[in-house]
Amino acid sequence: MRFNLPLITNILGLLLFLNGSFMLLCIPFSVYYEEKWLPILAAGLVTLSSGALVWYLTKDSSSKELRKKDGYLIVTLGWLFMSLFGTLPFILTGSIPNFTNAFFETISGFTTTGASVLSDIESMPKGVLFWRSLTQWIGGMGIIVLAVAILPILGIGGMQLFIAEAPGISPDKMKPRIKEVAKRLWFIYLGLTLAETVLLMMGGMNFFDAINHSLTTMATGGFSTKNASVAHYESPFIHYVIIIFMFLAGTNFTITYYGLKGKFKKVWANEEFRIYFIIVGFLSICISFFVFSHDWRGFEKSFRDSLFQVVSVITTTGYVTEDYTKWAPFVTIIFFLLMFLGGSAGSTAGGVKVVRHTLLFKNSFLEMKRQLHPSAVIPVRLNSSAVSRDITYNVLAFVMIYLLVYSIGVFLISFTGEDFNTTLGAVATTLGNIGPGLGEVGPVNNFASITPFGKWVLAGLMLLGRLELFTVLILFNPNFWKKY
Amino acid sequence: MRFNLPLITNILGLLLFLNGSFMLLCIPFSVYYEEKWLPILAAGLVTLSSGALVWYLTKDSSSKELRKKDGYLIVTLGWLFMSLFGTLPFILTGSIPNFTNAFFETISGFTTTGASVLSDIESMPKGVLFWRSLTQWIGGMGIIVLAVAILPILGIGGMQLFIAEAPGISPDKMKPRIKEVAKRLWFIYLGLTLAETVLLMMGGMNFFDAINHSLTTMATGGFSTKNASVAHYESPFIHYVIIIFMFLAGTNFTITYYGLKGKFKKVWANEEFRIYFIIVGFLSICISFFVFSHDWRGFEKSFRDSLFQVVSVITTTGYVTEDYTKWAPFVTIIFFLLMFLGGSAGSTAGGVKVVRHTLLFKNSFLEMKRQLHPSAVIPVRLNSSAVSRDITYNVLAFVMIYLLVYSIGVFLISFTGEDFNTTLGAVATTLGNIGPGLGEVGPVNNFASITPFGKWVLAGLMLLGRLELFTVLILFNPNFWKKY
Repeated sequence: MRFNLPLITNILGLLLFLNGSFMLLCIPFSVYYEEKWLPILAAGLVTLSSGALVWYLTKDSSSKELRKKDGYLIVTLGWLFMSLFGTLPFILTGSIPNFTNAFFETISGFTTTGASVLSDIESMPKGVLFWRSLTQWIGGMGIIVLAVAILPILGIGGMQLFIAEAPGISPDKMKPRIKEVAKRLWFIYLGLTLAETVLLMMGGMNFFDAINHSLTTMATGGFSTKNASVAHYESPFIHYVIIIFMFLAGTNFTITYYGLKGKFKKVWANEEFRIYFIIVGFLSICISFFVFSHDWRGFEKSFRDSLFQVVSVITTTGYVTEDYTKWAPFVTIIFFLLMFLGGSAGSTAGGVKVVRHTLLFKNSFLEMKRQLHPSAVIPVRLNSSAVSRDITYNVLAFVMIYLLVYSIGVFLISFTGEDFNTTLGAVATTLGNIGPGLGEVGPVNNFASITPFGKWVLAGLMLLGRLELFTVLILFNPNFWKKY
Repeated sequence: MRFNLPLITNILGLLLFLNGSFMLLCIPFSVYYEEKWLPILAAGLVTLSSGALVWYLTKDSSSKELRKKDGYLIVTLGWLFMSLFGTLPFILTGSIPNFTNAFFETISGFTTTGASVLSDIESMPKGVLFWRSLTQWIGGMGIIVLAVAILPILGIGGMQLFIAEAPGISPDKMKPRIKEVAKRLWFIYLGLTLAETVLLMMGGMNFFDAINHSLTTMATGGFSTKNASVAHYESPFIHYVIIIFMFLAGTNFTITYYGLKGKFKKVWANEEFRIYFIIVGFLSICISFFVFSHDWRGFEKSFRDSLFQVVSVITTTGYVTEDYTKWAPFVTIIFFLLMFLGGSAGSTAGGVKVVRHTLLFKNSFLEMKRQLHPSAVIPVRLNSSAVSRDITYNVLAFVMIYLLVYSIGVFLISFTGEDFNTTLGAVATTLGNIGPGLGEVGPVNNFASITPFGKWVLAGLMLLGRLELFTVLILFNPNFWKKY
């Protein structure tokens, strides 16, 4: 047997079962807001029972052993099936009747991207909106397991490196304790979501909006329940709360764990965190000075708007407090570049990630040193320890593939007839799992006007970006399907 | 002694001497067209005598040995001093009185970029225009030596690999025969320039325009003597002649050498050439079908215009027969992506180069195979032989630095207030040594409107791109200046 198909199917069944159960969580909101709850119940039961049936039929699979190849299949198929069944609440309630649109919205959720086809969000039933936010939160949960447990074992994009710092994990004893670590991180994820909900309610949001925004903040997803996104709220308190939680969601969760335990020295000792913190601070201050000097709104408001948008794009959340592409051409350009940065590894943020950039930046400079001293062995150092050449090599290849996929995406989207900045922005924002792009798909627009072909391409890019490219692309490599 | 300064100075003196001599070649044109020739004579004599003096004062340098570090300094300073003194004909004749503009135009020449600050080229004295074309031809000549002789020894960007095919060079016996190989390639360069001149005259160009266009075609420079660039000429014959010679100039000169000797099997056996040929053919056909179906001009004209522009951008020449950014948004986007492709290694073309892309593309796919079989050693193969991991690593680092420099360039140019596509296009076209960009610096515009700060940044990018990044950047590495 090349793949452990019974076990793969079994796990996918379990995931669908969970997916269906989550759908049922939307019903209380439907009932409370006196909306039709039957379609959501139907969607939930279909998903739940399909999952349960598949799970039951395969539960006696003889071998419990999963190999790497099985891992790639489970992750990619898992995200795909979750997204396929996840369209049901949108379709059955008639909120998004078109399948392409529903799939785009759902995969945008599960990949925590936040790109939307909805023009009038506020007219949607609350139960459906809650499902929309939940898809992001579930996606974020999946990413945490992926980052700490699955990708390091699959050896993808140097991820084995970034979790070396995870509490209680030493690379050689990784497997046995992974369940425990994942649980601990989920606990932080859940705790921060609840904390944000309470704080947002203190800021004046009602319970429904507070929980929705908390779910999508912690997932760095960025779906809002308001047409104007966070710009709907004028309260500085709400803005700052969201800024802080976006920042936390884009921080490596193990670092947050140390932070919560008061080990601040250990937090600051982490190189990726330091650079992430410095980039956010530096850019926010630069841009806020510009906004302050060109468009009078008081210093605090300039700083808040700049900080909000910088954090929103870097953490790949995608909330909007103002159309920053109108501030000045150079601001648009800087935000476009930021789309290629990404948050921290081990967080729910998408994109290339700060640690990869750090590694490559250092390696580039060392490459010059290597040219001057060709016989010397000069490794890249991260957190003061040498990074193996295999990992550096893998990270280099990751970024090259990222750019290759970006170029192919731009090439394909260019045929849909969109203009220069819309095309470049749409591909960057979906591949980086951010949300809003530029031009026609900018911060105050949405993806409704993109052609169906374009939507499928962008949906594919979201999945590729979210699963760190290799997980999906490896399925297209003929070697993957060879017997040995 | 850390550097062999006397010898470095001596060589720079010799280069300036040659530069001055070339300036004197412009005087016949000034005389023939009854223009003031005294300023050009003065420029030539100043450059020539400064060079001669420096050369004379340092000619008894005790050591004739050059080390790698000396090589980096000679190449970068050589290009800089040539460009500095090269401004003299522009400034002394009053054609480009502003120093920033004159330097931009000159370094755009010596780096074979072809980005211009001139709005009315045809109003310029012919002698000055000839100097403008000559700077590109001299630059191209320099690039040939650089590609076959200097960069491989310095070990830059995998260049040691690309010349392994050069006639008469085996990597271990490289040095002794380099002079001979360089001479042979210069002979081809000179021969093709003369052949093109004759053909263009047969097509109806006068001698002056023919020689100028030939000089800048073979250098893949793209300076034209006409305001409308090659669009000035309606003759299909002239267009096809220029297409063929641009294509040749963007081909590895050693491959052209084999081609001229009739060894076509050897030409087709070269992987980079095959891919370069296929990309040009494929894209031209695709775009010509689009142009044909959207904008009636007959099939031949559609094909010719598409082929011309594809070859012009891929070979980094930058001639224009029509404003292709007006054809359709997707055409603009494809040409923007092509700016990152570049011609063949060992040609006068700039940019990343086809062979590097080929290597990285293959490596990316192999990286997935490596993930499936972590213990297997899977090298990248080029022309059927394995490429060492050191070289692949160096090429990966090269492309990363290329993109890093691109991003920093975009960041800096964004502050000049240019819009999104102007900024992205201007940086891509100067770093890739192409010439025309997008938007305000598009195919039918020029760089006059860019701020002085912007011009200096772009001038720096041209130099960086032309000298394959490392040669210049290594001078900024503290290790370079350390004693050992």
